[in-house]
Parts: sequence; C-alpha cells; structure tokens
Amino acid sequence: MKNQRQVNIKAYRPGNGFILNYQRLVKEAVIPYQYEVLHDRADGAEKSGVIENFKNAAAVLRGEKPSGDFYGMVFQDSDAAKWIEAAAFSLAIFPDEELEKRADELIELIASAQDEDGYLNTRFTISDKDKRWTNLLEGHELYCSGHFMEAAVAYFEATGKRRLLDVMEKNAEHIYEHFIENKHRGFPGHPEVELALLKMYRATGNKHCLELAEHFLDERGSDKDFYKDEAAARDWTVWGNNAEDGYYQQSYAPVREQADAVGHAVRAVYLYTGMADLASVTGDEGLLKACGRLWESIVGRRMYITGGIGSTGIGEAFTVDYDLPNDTAYAESCASVGLMMFASRMLEICPEGKYADIMERAFYNTVLGGMQLDGKKFFYVNPLEVLPGISGCAATHWHDKPERSAWYACACCPPNIARTISSIGKYAYGESEEACYCHLYAAGEVCFDNGMKIKCETEYPYGFKIRYEIIKGGKVLAVRIPEWSEYVKFGKNDEEFSPVMKNGYAYFEGVCEGDIIEIRLDDRGKFVYPSAKIAENTGCVAIERGPLVYCAEAIDNGGDVLSLRADDGSEIVVSEFQPNLLGGTVTLSFGGFRVSGQDSLYSYKKPEETPCGITAVPYYTWGNRGLGEMRVWIGRK
Amino acid sequence: MKNQRQVNIKAYRPGNGFILNYQRLVKEAVIPYQYEVLHDRADGAEKSGVIENFKNAAAVLRGEKPSGDFYGMVFQDSDAAKWIEAAAFSLAIFPDEELEKRADELIELIASAQDEDGYLNTRFTISDKDKRWTNLLEGHELYCSGHFMEAAVAYFEATGKRRLLDVMEKNAEHIYEHFIENKHRGFPGHPEVELALLKMYRATGNKHCLELAEHFLDERGSDKDFYKDEAAARDWTVWGNNAEDGYYQQSYAPVREQADAVGHAVRAVYLYTGMADLASVTGDEGLLKACGRLWESIVGRRMYITGGIGSTGIGEAFTVDYDLPNDTAYAESCASVGLMMFASRMLEICPEGKYADIMERAFYNTVLGGMQLDGKKFFYVNPLEVLPGISGCAATHWHDKPERSAWYACACCPPNIARTISSIGKYAYGESEEACYCHLYAAGEVCFDNGMKIKCETEYPYGFKIRYEIIKGGKVLAVRIPEWSEYVKFGKNDEEFSPVMKNGYAYFEGVCEGDIIEIRLDDRGKFVYPSAKIAENTGCVAIERGPLVYCAEAIDNGGDVLSLRADDGSEIVVSEFQPNLLGGTVTLSFGGFRVSGQDSLYSYKKPEETPCGITAVPYYTWGNRGLGEMRVWIGRK
Repeated sequence: MKNQRQVNIKAYRPGNGFILNYQRLVKEAVIPYQYEVLHDRADGAEKSGVIENFKNAAAVLRGEKPSGDFYGMVFQDSDAAKWIEAAAFSLAIFPDEELEKRADELIELIASAQDEDGYLNTRFTISDKDKRWTNLLEGHELYCSGHFMEAAVAYFEATGKRRLLDVMEKNAEHIYEHFIENKHRGFPGHPEVELALLKMYRATGNKHCLELAEHFLDERGSDKDFYKDEAAARDWTVWGNNAEDGYYQQSYAPVREQADAVGHAVRAVYLYTGMADLASVTGDEGLLKACGRLWESIVGRRMYITGGIGSTGIGEAFTVDYDLPNDTAYAESCASVGLMMFASRMLEICPEGKYADIMERAFYNTVLGGMQLDGKKFFYVNPLEVLPGISGCAATHWHDKPERSAWYACACCPPNIARTISSIGKYAYGESEEACYCHLYAAGEVCFDNGMKIKCETEYPYGFKIRYEIIKGGKVLAVRIPEWSEYVKFGKNDEEFSPVMKNGYAYFEGVCEGDIIEIRLDDRGKFVYPSAKIAENTGCVAIERGPLVYCAEAIDNGGDVLSLRADDGSEIVVSEFQPNLLGGTVTLSFGGFRVSGQDSLYSYKKPEETPCGITAVPYYTWGNRGLGEMRVWIGRK
Repeated sequence: MKNQRQVNIKAYRPGNGFILNYQRLVKEAVIPYQYEVLHDRADGAEKSGVIENFKNAAAVLRGEKPSGDFYGMVFQDSDAAKWIEAAAFSLAIFPDEELEKRADELIELIASAQDEDGYLNTRFTISDKDKRWTNLLEGHELYCSGHFMEAAVAYFEATGKRRLLDVMEKNAEHIYEHFIENKHRGFPGHPEVELALLKMYRATGNKHCLELAEHFLDERGSDKDFYKDEAAARDWTVWGNNAEDGYYQQSYAPVREQADAVGHAVRAVYLYTGMADLASVTGDEGLLKACGRLWESIVGRRMYITGGIGSTGIGEAFTVDYDLPNDTAYAESCASVGLMMFASRMLEICPEGKYADIMERAFYNTVLGGMQLDGKKFFYVNPLEVLPGISGCAATHWHDKPERSAWYACACCPPNIARTISSIGKYAYGESEEACYCHLYAAGEVCFDNGMKIKCETEYPYGFKIRYEIIKGGKVLAVRIPEWSEYVKFGKNDEEFSPVMKNGYAYFEGVCEGDIIEIRLDDRGKFVYPSAKIAENTGCVAIERGPLVYCAEAIDNGGDVLSLRADDGSEIVVSEFQPNLLGGTVTLSFGGFRVSGQDSLYSYKKPEETPCGITAVPYYTWGNRGLGEMRVWIGRK
C-alpha cells in the first residue's frame, strides 16, 4: 500500500504543551464522568440506561427476564462504544490499570449481550427481535455496530487485547451473512459502519469487512425508493423520518455521482470518510473524484470560518452554497469531528496541506470549543454569534444555546470530542513508505513504524516555533506548512535551510539522528475578510492568529459587542501568554470604534463613533465566563 | 364620543394619483380574479371550494344531500367575507351595477347557509354539527364570523343594504346566547371577532356586540389552562396546535397585563386592534395602557424598517427584541395590514403622528409590496433580502420566496391587501368633534360628517407638495407631518404660514371655503442607520425617500447586490419620475464601491474596492422584473 497512513495510537507520546493538557483533561474529567453517566450515577446528567441495557440484553439471551425495557435513544449502545474508544486512546497515552480494568469489564458485558449468531444491539435484543434489520433508515443497528468496531480496533491498538475485536469480527460476519450471503437489501440510514469496517479490515485483514464497506457504499442511492419500500413493508417507526427524502441521509444519488454536501452534516462527513478510505484502499478513481467534489463543496462554499459545518438546525444539516448564518448556525461538534476524519482520510490519499489546514481549523475551533475548559459541559451546536435574549430563546435560535450544558440523553458530541482529543496523535502524524508526515503540530515523541523517531517541541497554538529533534534518522520528514502562515523560516542544525516545498508540505530529506529542524511560522494576528457571497458577513471582519479564530466577548468589551466596529487598518496587538486567563491564552487587541446615539430602531442620524480598543479571545474559549454577547464576525469600520 | 373616528367609506372620493391607480387595479384585477377563485374558475389558482361550501351548507340546512364534503382550510368561509368587504369598499369608490349584483347574490348564498339559530359556518354545517364551538383554539368559527361582520358593516356603509348586516346581527345574537347567556366558556384562538363586533356595535348600536367584544377580551388569558382543558374534552383536532402554548394566540396572560408583542403576528395585531377599539369606546385605562406597551414593543423593538412584523416563519410569529433577520423574515402581508388597523385605532384615541407614521410605513412598503404591480401575484412573506439559490430553497428560507405566487389555497393575504387599498380613505381621513384629520396624503375629495369638505391634490409618494383646497370650511383641519420630514414648509393662500404643531400634526384653525393650504415636505433621499442592537444589520445602511423604503435589485446593479458597499457620504440623486418603470417610479442613485478579489470563502486579503454607482428602487416594486438578488440593508463602505 503506497498511501500514507495515520500512525498507530501508541506511536505518539505527548510532550508538555497544549495537546497534553487537553488529553489530561479528557482522562481526568471527561472519561470518568462519562463512565458515571453510562452507569446512571453522574450528578446533573440525564439517565442514560446504557449499562442497564447491556445487562438486560444479556439476561434475555440467557433466557432470563430483564429488569426493564430498553432505555434511551435507538443508538444508546454507541455511548458505550465511544467511551471504550476514548478510554483506549487515553490508555495508550496514560496507562492506567484501573481504567483498563473498567474497560475490560465493560467489554465483557458487551460480549455477553451478543447473540449467538453475532448480532449485537440491545434495542432489538431486549425486545423486538423480529424487527432486526427492518428499519435501516432509523434503526441505527449498523451505526452502533460501526462504533463498536471503531472501539474494538482502538482497544486492540492500545492494549493488544483482542476480546472486543473478536466480538466485532463475529458481528461483522453476521452482517456479511445477512446482507451479502442472504442478499438482504439496504444500507445504513446513518453512515458510520463503512468507515468502521475499513478500520476492521486494516486491523484484521478480514476481506469480508472490506467487501461489506464497499457493498454499503455501492448500495447507497442505487435504488432511490429503497427506504420508501422499506417503510411500506413495516408497521413501526422510530421518529417518523421521511423515507422519501433522499437528501437527509445522502441517498439521493449513487455516492460516486454526488457533488454537493447535503443533508444531515454528521451523516455526510461520516459517509465521505468511508468513501475516501475505500478509495484509499481500492484506488477507486470515481470514488476519489466524488470525494474531491464533496470536499470542495464543503470547504469552498458551505463551511464556517471555525470549521463548523451544517448551517441549519432543521435536520442538523447542510443547506445551500454560501448560506452561513452566524446566529442560527448548527455547526455541530460531531460534524467537525467528522470533517477532521474526512480530512485525515483525504490526507492519506494525497498529502496536501489544504486538507490538514481544514483538519486543524475544525479541531482548534469547533471541536475544542464544543467542550467547556473544565471538561464538564458541552456544546452540541456552535454558533458564531450569541446574543443573550435571542440565542436559545427565539424559536429560530432554540438550538443555539448561549452556554454549554451538562451531558445530555443524546450524548453524541461529548464522547466524540473526547475520542478525538485522545487520538489527536493519529491525526497529527502519518507515514508512508517514502516519508514520515507531521500534519499538525503536536508536541511529543513519535516512533514511526519505519524506524524514524522524532521529538517535537512547541508551544503551539500560542507559540509559533516548532522544533523537531531527530532521535532516529530515516528517509524523509515532511512537515505541513499552513496556508495561513504568510511567511515561514526554516532552520536545520542552527542554520537557515530551504526544504523542498510541495503542496503545502516542507520535505526534509535524509534526516539523521541528532538533526534539529526548526520552523518559525507567522505569529501575527490578522483580519480575515469574508467572501462577498456570504450575505450574513457583509460589513464584517474576523480575527485570527495561527490556527485560532478569535471572537469578541462582552466581558472583555464593556458588556456590549454589537456596537463595536473594528478598524482593520489598526495594528493587532498580541498579548503575552496569560496563564491564568481561560486556561492559559493569548488575547488580541486592536483599534476600533463604538457606535452610539441610535436610540430608535432606525434613524437618519449617522451613529456617533467613539474610538475604543477591542479585545478578542480564541473562539474555543468562549462562553467560559458567564452569559454575554459573543461575535466572531465583528462590524468593520 | 369625543374620540376621532375614521371617515365613512363614502366620504372619500379619490382623485388622480397613486392611490387612485392602486384602487383601480384592485377593482379591475384583484376583485374579478378573486371572484373567479371563489367559484373555482380561475386559471392557475388552486381550488378554493368557497362557493361550493356555501351551496352544500345550504343544502344540508334544507335537509338535502350536499354535493360533497366541506373543502379547504377551516377558515375557508372568510375568503368570501373578505371578497365582499373589498367589493364593498370598491363599490363606494367606483359604483358598478354588475359587481354589486354579484355581491348581492353572494350575500344571499351566505344567508342561505345560516342555520335557523343564527349559526353561520360551512365547515361545521356541512358535517360535524356536534363539533360546533368545541375547538375555539383551532376552529376559526369566531374568526369567520368576524370577517362576515366586517364585510356586513362595509357593505352596509357602501351600499346602504342591510341584508348581510341582519344576517350577522342574528349571528352575533347566536354567539351572545351561546357564550354569554349559556355561559359557554372560551375565547377565539384567532382574534378578529373582537374588532368586528366593535364595528357591528358602531354600525348597529347593538349593545350585545359591545358586550361580547369585551367578554372575549376579558376571557383571553384569564384561565391559562382553558385550551388545555378544551383539548382534553374533545377527540379531534384540526392541525394539532399546542394547547399549552399560550404565546401563539396571546393567551399567556390577561390582555391588560400583556407587555410584549408575541406569538402569531396576525393574531397579535388583530387582538391589539380590538383592544384599542374597546378602549376607545369604553375609556378603559388599563386596556389603553396595555395597547401603548404593546405598540412600543412592536415599533420600538420588533418591527422591520418596511413596517413588516413577525421575524420567523415558525408559527408566523414575533420572536424576541431586536431579532430582525432580513433573509428569513416572515413579515406577513396580513400582519402589516393588521398593524395598520392597530395604528388607525390608536390614532382614533390619540391623534399622534407616531401612529400614522407607522401606518404609512406599513402601507407603502410591506402591504403594497405584497402585491405584484399587475395585481395578479402576491407575497405572503416579505423578506428584506432575497438571494436566489438560498431564498425559497434552504429549509430555513423555505417561506421566503424570491418571486410572488398566484393565489394560494390559503388565501389570506391577497384579499386583505385588496380591502386595505380599497378602504385606504378610511385610514387616511378621520374626524372628531373638534377637527378633521388628514393622517395620510391621499389625493381626492373628502366630505366630513361635520360639514367640512376638502380637496387634496398631490403626487405623493413621488411628489412632496400636498395642496388642500377647502371646499367647505369648518373648525380645524389637522394634517399629519411625518417625522421623516426633517423640514416642512407651510403655505396658506400663497403666503408662508405657521400652523400650531402638536404631536406630529399641523393644526389649521378656522379654515374657510376657498382657502388653499400647501405643505412641502422633505423630498430628499436619505441613508438610514439601524440600531446597533439589530445584529443582522451591522455594517449596513438602508435608503429611504419620503414614506418609501428603497432596495437594491440585481437588475439595476450589474446582476450582483451582495458585493455593493454604499458610500453614505455620497449624495443621493433623485431621478425624474419614470412613468414606464415599475408602474411609474423614481429611482435613487448614490455612490459606492463594489468589492472583489475574494475568490475563497475567507481571505486575509483586503477586498479590492472599485467605485461604482448604486441604484435603488422602492421596496414595494421589488421582484417585478424576474429573479435576482434584492437587499434593503446594503453594506456600508
């Protein structure tokens, strides 16, 4: 296989810095809290019923009477899977016997809930066995299997333990038998199993997994009436999803013919991730071309500056080109996680900086912003403008909460953020036969399979010097240079150096043990101008520094952000690193005006403009200091 | 009664000018077309079933078998009522035997569908007699009665014929018996009957009508659980309206305690109109204060510059303060009609220019804009920004159509616009014991009840000289001077003159036969600045001249409006009157820039700015020249 691949989870050991701090937070705050949630013991969280469901399913399989009905959403099982996956990634970084024991126990519990034929899903095991596989549109059976498969591969990668991998291989064989051998038609309403089957294939070499992934991708959209026919053949529904809307779940056309990112944003990017991964394995040109079109559709016309995707809460979905409202945005945390996955798969096929740039944008802004700095509360929805009294209040803004909430019953985002942070090393580092790749700047040591070993030191995203020490030499070290860096300085062993630059990567060839490579990136704060086609952003600018999008919050700006007008001719002053502010951050200040004197809704009087300074903080830190206005796009003088 | 009152419909005879042209259009295009719609004979319109419903109800009452079931919306009858009302107003201006004959016939048909006990509603007469009055939340029985009452009063006023008035007095007695004598609890889900009962009371002196109006207003919100209890007591629903949401139909609190304009915008302003009218009749201070608060809530915090109200399509409703999105606005034509009614009632209590200013703003912008210039197509929803590809396409913008449609099945707006235009004389002129009032500038002759007779000549809203000739003298002529007019010149008999100014009205005392009063208003085009609290309008300006809000359309601006930036330091050049453009109009041109060079969604490159001229046309004329971008709020340089 000549494509580049993410490194093994154990290849990266984080060093002091921003990433390590976040990974610790996940280990210390998120994983233990979610564990309590799964067991219905967490303060302030809604009941999850997850563990109880597995116990009840196991009881039914043993022929015993369960203690109760299935509880929760139809995809409730996946919470356990995501917890195991996050725990696995965390264990690879921070070995922890107690945590591993808990994970092993949970895996045994899951195994006990697997039917003899390999079927695994508590919703349809506790009751309704006859309804298995009859509602692919809404039933989420393949979705849950997919998450268990991801967890199985992660746990195997982290611990070498095969127990869950075996369970899921058996489950994959059951699915193979049902959909391939017994020719049960259909494909999952929520894509996920495709990308997971490909992970299984890579971990086990089981060709049935590859075949199944390809099968589900080929089936999608091949018969536009499939869900309609499926709905007509059953007498039950989960939510009454419209079986005739092919856009919501991206089944309006065969995947190789799709051109625009449409429908439920999480489904979309999970699907595209699977498509890209299959193209990577099989070299399928048509699939790769479709991935390229869909990528461009997202990042060229349908993505927020924060890497958020999905402009509307109606169906948590993409809408149309250039429709990017700031205040009513959906921009689900999970969708940005999915965008990172899609970007990572595209990178594997083709190491171009444009993919890593978006991966980084989504991570440092929407994904991190989805979590409170203390790891205890979460945003599902990540608006770019919040106005107390409107956000979370008006019917159109109901989903755009002005403050993060504790764990919900529908707990997709928190564990998704947790697993992404814990596995960020896999997104950051990759390798092919020819080179070792640094896609993101993540401090720590990396042992590549090809023998090269490096150590990265950096205070990124607040420091813009990145230092690589070559501990064991190798062929080529390739480091992404972000497009936002309008200049870059390279040094090798204390001398200026000009590496080969190609598609956004600097290629250092023939690196040897002891070599020191230094990169200095553009550390200025900058004004960002929106395309004129984004009507919502007319007359506004945003502010960025490095990978971080900034925002103005009321608390730093006299309680009122709407009356601020940024002077984009002014200099952006970068503060010292402030260790006690927002978990340690750097603020940006610049000149501007505050408009006033408009007492009525509409006035012929030109507003008065009083010069003022404006202070902005990183978007990922917003909403950590109480309720107040927040804006990414600020009025421009 | 010392309050001022609207003049009788026959008091105003339009003279050459803008108003007359519109009234002719209604007579020649709208009324005949709607007549065909009622009879299911109109090309391109959806089936209405209105006439058929009355025939079927009459058949049932005669003990015969109807030709079919009730057809259409639960409030389908009201279409016939609104047509009669529009026809009545039109007949007062343009006598027309054929039209009057058609109206008489329709009235006979309606009378034949009235039950012996006075009940009148085809939905519950054709079938479901046992369901009468059991679903006030959704049933619209009182709403339809209200529209018939309005039609009855208008037809009586215009023709002197009492037939429909008698029918509706009998209906009112039925309602009185049911709700007052038999103590059936409740109040209408859709306010309308309150204002209509007050019209009936003024036309007939029937005190039961006054008592009923007061009763329904007192009942509303007095028992917050009423609709919940009502829903629990029946086993059917029309749309499944949420009986526990007191905001949608303004029943969350007793009306005298309400402070914010909330819920379905048309319901709200119909309710407030009834409240203001009752306060006018009874002098109820608490009610008047509530009206004042609700007025301020609308015009101070929840109204578009176009006089549109209702920020969201979700429930066609008001949302919260300062939430005024331009692209996803609802701003229903009917809601602006209702705002005019509310304004007119407030004026009657208290002749202050601020009410007439809003009435004029709603009329010349949203109400007129709701109708195609040829009178054949209509907007229900009146957005302030339209972007083909987004408007009418994205799920969030589904209701914001970029072009007007032909008559719908739910035909509330077209006849509402028609009756408002035809009766504009009543909004324009009023009288009290002390004075004759000119609230709007409407060319024509007016015979006041108190004997004064005047003739108004003006090219308003395109000419800003208004000339009043006193044909018969009287005590005082009071003319509103709009707040937008930053200067005004008065002349009396060719000499400069300084009338007494009070609350936005110029009072000319002791006017005599032959006196000529001339008023010259501010005729400049002006930039308008939004309150900084309206997040959507940050960095934008609007343009107005006189009562007209202007907008930039693609067709006048090189096909692209989003890239325009207005230079609010430039002069606004007013064109000659262009008789062949958009039914005769004046364009405004001003300087600005076109931004370019932003090929990607987000860029560090400051956009290039190329000087350009920008041309704007009146908002009410937009969308008459094919599909294209439209913006009221234009980016400001």
